[in-house]
Amino acid sequence: METKQIAAPDTPKSPTAILLMHCPDRQGILATVTRLINVHGGNIVYLDQYVDREAGVFFMRVEWELDGFSIPKDEIAPTFERLYAKKYNLYFRLYFNDYKPRMAIFVSKLSHCLYDMLARYTAGEWDVEIPLIISNHPDLRPVAERFGIPFHHIPITKENKAAQEAATLGLLADERIDFVVLARYMQILSDDFIRNFPHRIINIHHSFLPAFIGARPYHAAYERGVKLIGATSHYVTADLDAGPIIEQDIARISHKDNVASLIHRGQDLEKIVLSKAVEKHIQRKILTYRNKTIIFS
Amino acid sequence: METKQIAAPDTPKSPTAILLMHCPDRQGILATVTRLINVHGGNIVYLDQYVDREAGVFFMRVEWELDGFSIPKDEIAPTFERLYAKKYNLYFRLYFNDYKPRMAIFVSKLSHCLYDMLARYTAGEWDVEIPLIISNHPDLRPVAERFGIPFHHIPITKENKAAQEAATLGLLADERIDFVVLARYMQILSDDFIRNFPHRIINIHHSFLPAFIGARPYHAAYERGVKLIGATSHYVTADLDAGPIIEQDIARISHKDNVASLIHRGQDLEKIVLSKAVEKHIQRKILTYRNKTIIFS
Amino acid sequence: METKQIAAPDTPKSPTAILLMHCPDRQGILATVTRLINVHGGNIVYLDQYVDREAGVFFMRVEWELDGFSIPKDEIAPTFERLYAKKYNLYFRLYFNDYKPRMAIFVSKLSHCLYDMLARYTAGEWDVEIPLIISNHPDLRPVAERFGIPFHHIPITKENKAAQEAATLGLLADERIDFVVLARYMQILSDDFIRNFPHRIINIHHSFLPAFIGARPYHAAYERGVKLIGATSHYVTADLDAGPIIEQDIARISHKDNVASLIHRGQDLEKIVLSKAVEKHIQRKILTYRNKTIIFS
Amino acid sequence: METKQIAAPDTPKSPTAILLMHCPDRQGILATVTRLINVHGGNIVYLDQYVDREAGVFFMRVEWELDGFSIPKDEIAPTFERLYAKKYNLYFRLYFNDYKPRMAIFVSKLSHCLYDMLARYTAGEWDVEIPLIISNHPDLRPVAERFGIPFHHIPITKENKAAQEAATLGLLADERIDFVVLARYMQILSDDFIRNFPHRIINIHHSFLPAFIGARPYHAAYERGVKLIGATSHYVTADLDAGPIIEQDIARISHKDNVASLIHRGQDLEKIVLSKAVEKHIQRKILTYRNKTIIFS
Repeated sequence: METKQIAAPDTPKSPTAILLMHCPDRQGILATVTRLINVHGGNIVYLDQYVDREAGVFFMRVEWELDGFSIPKDEIAPTFERLYAKKYNLYFRLYFNDYKPRMAIFVSKLSHCLYDMLARYTAGEWDVEIPLIISNHPDLRPVAERFGIPFHHIPITKENKAAQEAATLGLLADERIDFVVLARYMQILSDDFIRNFPHRIINIHHSFLPAFIGARPYHAAYERGVKLIGATSHYVTADLDAGPIIEQDIARISHKDNVASLIHRGQDLEKIVLSKAVEKHIQRKILTYRNKTIIFS
Repeated sequence: METKQIAAPDTPKSPTAILLMHCPDRQGILATVTRLINVHGGNIVYLDQYVDREAGVFFMRVEWELDGFSIPKDEIAPTFERLYAKKYNLYFRLYFNDYKPRMAIFVSKLSHCLYDMLARYTAGEWDVEIPLIISNHPDLRPVAERFGIPFHHIPITKENKAAQEAATLGLLADERIDFVVLARYMQILSDDFIRNFPHRIINIHHSFLPAFIGARPYHAAYERGVKLIGATSHYVTADLDAGPIIEQDIARISHKDNVASLIHRGQDLEKIVLSKAVEKHIQRKILTYRNKTIIFS
Repeated sequence: METKQIAAPDTPKSPTAILLMHCPDRQGILATVTRLINVHGGNIVYLDQYVDREAGVFFMRVEWELDGFSIPKDEIAPTFERLYAKKYNLYFRLYFNDYKPRMAIFVSKLSHCLYDMLARYTAGEWDVEIPLIISNHPDLRPVAERFGIPFHHIPITKENKAAQEAATLGLLADERIDFVVLARYMQILSDDFIRNFPHRIINIHHSFLPAFIGARPYHAAYERGVKLIGATSHYVTADLDAGPIIEQDIARISHKDNVASLIHRGQDLEKIVLSKAVEKHIQRKILTYRNKTIIFS
Repeated sequence: METKQIAAPDTPKSPTAILLMHCPDRQGILATVTRLINVHGGNIVYLDQYVDREAGVFFMRVEWELDGFSIPKDEIAPTFERLYAKKYNLYFRLYFNDYKPRMAIFVSKLSHCLYDMLARYTAGEWDVEIPLIISNHPDLRPVAERFGIPFHHIPITKENKAAQEAATLGLLADERIDFVVLARYMQILSDDFIRNFPHRIINIHHSFLPAFIGARPYHAAYERGVKLIGATSHYVTADLDAGPIIEQDIARISHKDNVASLIHRGQDLEKIVLSKAVEKHIQRKILTYRNKTIIFS
């Protein structure tokens, strides 16, 4: 009936470099950077840029093929640093599409977000490695085992929190984890922990932030009598539920819904919103600036 | 190409009575009420009921044709009162579809909600009378004149607020106004004023409540970096932006939007959300209970 | 942070009977049926009714507790049959909430819908049994094994189709399957097969039906340049992609999407739309009438 | 409560030139064009580009300030023509933000789209002139008069169609009309008429195209039992309802809706979808290519 369908949509086949950058906006910055890539034989396969005219900041994501590019791979970042960092006050990150980012998942007891991500991972949708799952409860060990991923049960109490976070950081270091996904992880991370992964911890909050910050948002939504419920994925910062928002979505509810049905219906939102955020992060399509995200297409 | 289309969808042609009611839930209440209507020859053309099992409350909207109904029109309410009010602890409102509710619109300077409502009114979509428009600014007088509706400019300062509200209440009384719509009216009504129209003042707030209560919600949304903006219509109570929510909707935005574009894009939300709420109110399809709305289909 | 949350929202704890019915609309039908339940001591925990005034048909779903209900369980259907079937020309189905419907899943090569359903099943969200998965390809056997569900590979060619369908029907009979879910199953079922499961086969079509019927709808959507893509779950009938629609949803796309990204983005739609339809079916909340569905809340 | 809000979000204050272009994609094209603008002192205030990698086509919209730009206004187009048209096989359109495009509205009997556009126009939201409204029915003359816009009643029959279209074209020429908006205009334009306004006639079709092409789409949607209705704005081409799609949106419906309520609910969709398309056209943010639109942000 149908030809074989490709799950991962836009993975470039050939090796590429991905530059995410921002700097104070000035005339000719885009032309300057693209010309540098072009004159060294780089074929640009993706370019998206955006100027925040109020802040006066230029943002760009550019991706080019390394085949035929005359600057050696490990000289690219130093070249940008030398040529532009000071001159243009440029902030940039350079990635290569042949490196798979390494992602840890933190869970507690709810499985829907975990299943959604592991299904995508297993189906080859995401160009990522998931070397471990960490939980403060043992409940989801069977899910992890089902997908053959090491599961670490690290119970946390008020008393042992610092030690357990240290143990967790050790595991993440051992596995050279690049970023962490909180898949309905019901613990507040310490500021110290968060500092180890600046804008590299993605959380899903089960409300349309900034409405219903904190615990039990569905109960609060029910009490308030809203007609829509929401979910919000965001980078974790020291302020609870106040980090840069990556993705949000909503579902329509009615007076017929009770707290249990809100929780039930919200789970579809949560898993899709979280997975979309994680996918954008994996694809290196997010820049953060002043507690907001720029999401490239 | 196309046969003539009817704007107003479900206006019954023949005279009907509309009963909106709630009472503690008990076995047989629906059967009891519908049987009463049936045995007196009332043909039910609409029935929608809902039981809030947690609160133990039964809600119903039932509409039946008066032709052939053996209880005289002005005896219907007393009959329900006598038979059920005490026995079932029944709260009810009775309406007749041959009475057009009388609606006042309060505006300040923005015209989009006003135009949307006047267009529907003029096109005959709404079974309502709009005898007057009241504003604390003169700006929208030309809009009112364009549609031939009396416009009253009642400027409000801190000093004259009580007197001006009294004058406004006088106008509303003169015109036998049933309910008030605040179409981006930029004044907070006094508790005293609100008490005159309990759950009969509909406001549009330009955010997804309870996020961004109060002034300048688009600025706040921009600052927070949300990915969706919203609008909320609700009944006005003494608590600012905290009354029963009638309708909400959202629109997707991106990092490319600034405050001006949020304001611009939000206006489409505001006018549609407000008009939907007003329409439900005109159609007698809203019951309020414990600061929430039950919206019948 | 949060109390334990219940995944399945509205499963009644005590044994209940569920009646789905429709009949020509006439005065008093709702009162008659609910009175019968009430006078025999049945406590109604759910009632939703709808009258199609144009067709003159009354639809109802009513659920009541069996504890204290004086008609024995196996006498309920005969009682309705005897009292109402002929008198009111009543069509009805009676279900009991202590029977778990038995569901088969048919798949081909794509795993996203399968994973989504198995995750819900495993998490206890759905009150259903899934005794087997059938596929015309071997690819998804590992997924079935991961969840411990028997997987039957029944390859189909033009030549063996009749025999293979017969074998499939045998398996379904052996497992006393109540309904079948086609989770991106890339085979057209014969009319004969469909007749065995009238309105009991649920398909997901990867377009907003009736647009893009048949094969390769994402390619067709791309060619047409639509700005939204959709997914549609429906009961399978002899007409391809033309059976009663249960659920639809859409996602916004842009000129930046290519066929691969439509396919990728569509998969989130497909799995959610299919799972919502399956859930409504499991909950006995769907009536079909003249190639349309009435979906109770 | 709130500072004065600006309706039109992104109208640049100073004079600008807007270039819309596409050409076969090749290395350096973006750098070449932006460099040309930069070296002549043009400050770029907007740039959005997109590469269709499958078709191998580069699309760009760039807007720059004319103050300080050293190429005289009437030399800009010839310069692009001379330098790039042949060399890069470049297609381009050049606009200036100090010219207000002139728009004609065609209507029949339904007023909702007309009101929505006139409200925006009157409120100053759109940088456009509307010198005339043309209709094949007299019904909406009062609406036009209400807003002070000349209304031309040009009744059309099978017999007089060619003559009446000629008369209409005469009016459009007299008023130097740039583009035409069909606001629920219930006449099919001749191919000859359309050829006069290639991709400059915007229609609103009251369905989610390509579903329900042609007349009475709400009736067809009702018959099919869809769960969502839609509206589609598109450029008119010789193929009925098959031109490049600009904007689409949908609304959720249920089995409780009848044709009349679909028509009623669809009108909100139609007016918003049409107005969004017209706004993008006015802002020069649409390029068409191979029967699709590229919509710049």
